[in-house]
Amino acid sequence: MKAILVVGDGMADRPLRELNGKTPLEAAEKPSLDWVAENGVCGIMDPIAPGIPPGSDTAHLALLGYDPLKVYTGRGALEAVGSGMNVRPGDVAFRCNFATVDENLRVVDRRAGRIETDDASRLAEVFKEISLEKHPDVRVIFKNSIQHRAILLLRGPHLSTMVSDSDPQKVGSNVLRVRPLDNTPEARKTAEIVDELTQYFHKNLKEHPVNSERQKRGLLPANIILCRGAGKLPDITPITLRYGVQAAAICVMPLVRGVCKVAGMELLTVSGATGSYDTDVVAKADTALQAIQTNDLVFLHVKATDVASHDHKVQQKVKMIEKIDKMMKHLVKNANLEETIIAVTADHTTSLVTGEHEGDPVPVAIAGPGVRTDDIKDFGERTCAKGGLGRIRGVDLMPTIMSLQGKTKKFGA
Amino acid sequence: MKAILVVGDGMADRPLRELNGKTPLEAAEKPSLDWVAENGVCGIMDPIAPGIPPGSDTAHLALLGYDPLKVYTGRGALEAVGSGMNVRPGDVAFRCNFATVDENLRVVDRRAGRIETDDASRLAEVFKEISLEKHPDVRVIFKNSIQHRAILLLRGPHLSTMVSDSDPQKVGSNVLRVRPLDNTPEARKTAEIVDELTQYFHKNLKEHPVNSERQKRGLLPANIILCRGAGKLPDITPITLRYGVQAAAICVMPLVRGVCKVAGMELLTVSGATGSYDTDVVAKADTALQAIQTNDLVFLHVKATDVASHDHKVQQKVKMIEKIDKMMKHLVKNANLEETIIAVTADHTTSLVTGEHEGDPVPVAIAGPGVRTDDIKDFGERTCAKGGLGRIRGVDLMPTIMSLQGKTKKFGA
Repeated sequence: MKAILVVGDGMADRPLRELNGKTPLEAAEKPSLDWVAENGVCGIMDPIAPGIPPGSDTAHLALLGYDPLKVYTGRGALEAVGSGMNVRPGDVAFRCNFATVDENLRVVDRRAGRIETDDASRLAEVFKEISLEKHPDVRVIFKNSIQHRAILLLRGPHLSTMVSDSDPQKVGSNVLRVRPLDNTPEARKTAEIVDELTQYFHKNLKEHPVNSERQKRGLLPANIILCRGAGKLPDITPITLRYGVQAAAICVMPLVRGVCKVAGMELLTVSGATGSYDTDVVAKADTALQAIQTNDLVFLHVKATDVASHDHKVQQKVKMIEKIDKMMKHLVKNANLEETIIAVTADHTTSLVTGEHEGDPVPVAIAGPGVRTDDIKDFGERTCAKGGLGRIRGVDLMPTIMSLQGKTKKFGA
Repeated sequence: MKAILVVGDGMADRPLRELNGKTPLEAAEKPSLDWVAENGVCGIMDPIAPGIPPGSDTAHLALLGYDPLKVYTGRGALEAVGSGMNVRPGDVAFRCNFATVDENLRVVDRRAGRIETDDASRLAEVFKEISLEKHPDVRVIFKNSIQHRAILLLRGPHLSTMVSDSDPQKVGSNVLRVRPLDNTPEARKTAEIVDELTQYFHKNLKEHPVNSERQKRGLLPANIILCRGAGKLPDITPITLRYGVQAAAICVMPLVRGVCKVAGMELLTVSGATGSYDTDVVAKADTALQAIQTNDLVFLHVKATDVASHDHKVQQKVKMIEKIDKMMKHLVKNANLEETIIAVTADHTTSLVTGEHEGDPVPVAIAGPGVRTDDIKDFGERTCAKGGLGRIRGVDLMPTIMSLQGKTKKFGA
């Protein structure tokens, strides 16, 4: 038995006045998502625990069967892995932004006017070889990804993730001094290094020709790099070993790719998959259908539902759900349903009102051979709450799917 | 307030094509099980956790209120206790099979043609006094139970459960060398002992007159003993102490008897209870009705529903559920319902399709004074999912019953 798990990022929501008291899922035309509900068993799921708003990383760790409360050690290393960096156990990685500060190091724009990837890449070249004066035993690796996003990776002895961020995450605030978060020499050393690097970044960026050009074009200069989310690789058993399965992941977002990679999944790329509203969902479904030929589990992630919520775009979110429905239609039509479990859920609720991840449960539906179907016919937050799965936790989803696939091991005799 | 807990082993199942998409519970005529649902509160229960297929031992530990993830240390000692052996803390016990091997110690039949208990008992006599050459400080106790089943118990200083099995659990494979599973002298010593014993067993069995007779009758010789599942007694507080109750158990299966005994229950025997399809359920119910006069809790276990699933016998499972229903009818008719809680559940799902324990939840219904009844009228996997208990864990069942009995202690002030 095989399984395809479809995740609409931040797809779950709260009832909205603009939608006559419906959630976007309830308002959307989504016959194929409803097909999964009608032919499957439904429920609601707390990605982490009731009321806890999950991050994309912790939510996906949970969906893949790992308790984030036990294994999560920060976003940095996961994002680094997802960006294709070779992260080793012990490395400390940070998520970074190219940003704009004034002469007093006060933040003007946290994303340097959402700098284009090309400009960021040219700026990043000056950081190819950084040697730390006070800590020559530590190697510094810096890599930009999309637009303002980048990763800083520290490799060497005696490093710690227990350090604060230099990124104040607020326009108008000063760049923060990095503090050790515990009383260890490792945390003090790591904080010192990031502070030294922050100065180094600013010094080397503020008069960089790319920034002069940008200012001539009326764009904000990317004159500093802000660091946050120190993390190491989580110490987890890949699902390939845990369940003895081959698994592949289709997703664009580096952070989610990182989680999938760490979980032992092969990362696939799809031409036309953008992580945005214009993503080619049929191409994604086709890749999934191809991948399921040689894999036991395919994870298929669509990002833009979350983007719509962050941007407070109600109709855009409804449309994006309808696009996910088209993807599901293509999957259901072409998959071998006699030997494939089809599951659909969201990694968390993202509210169109607050624009934030929220702690509400998400709907989940699982269809396929052996499933104890219920009488739920609509895939939605409130309909699924009455389903046969009841209320489960994110960490229970993968064992539930693997059990239907006959891949779980008996505990006891 | 008293309570009778009825457990149909492996009674829960998945929807089956042969039963028009119903589960065996849904297909069976079971007015008395439905009476419990209609007059009680229903729910679904994950014996261990969603998606985790339980063993009989871990499932019953959970149903009696012990978290198997914390207290389980292997099947051997539980089975030994259930076979009536006196197991002491520190003893290491193994489940054993009389088996048939060829001259190269390759397994021909793991159960020596399901050898009759009489033959096995006669063979076991030669192992009454075993002295270990290399480890004279360790006492060896060997006892056969039903058919090919037996227990090996090691008693002495410095023994460990961290050893592998000699039983390859596969016909055609060689008897395995026992390996220490950690780097302790205790594990090495225990592995050495089991290896020495394996040779001893083979040497003393291969030319035993009972085997010569068997071969003349065209039966397979029982010329070796295979060991698996090293275990010690779990370190648990008996429910007699935990809740201050007297409790009795009615079950045939040695492993489940062992769990009940370790939990502090008196083990009752019922003439006509066989653990098979022909078991006398009315006799079992009568014993339960008698036992509840002097006990606060009676645990009443029926095995053959699980046997039917392991043997892929659909109609046999339906019939066996109808037999459990007759037992329930007798209980409900004759119990003092004014002061008795009646609860019914399964210890796990056993699929008629796969023949294996599966990780799906099981239905549970609890009727009796004080119960918050719901609108569920049928006892089944899917109906109970809509019940007032919601979705609970196995380890929650005993506190729930004991709370209705007024036997739980307040936590806090």
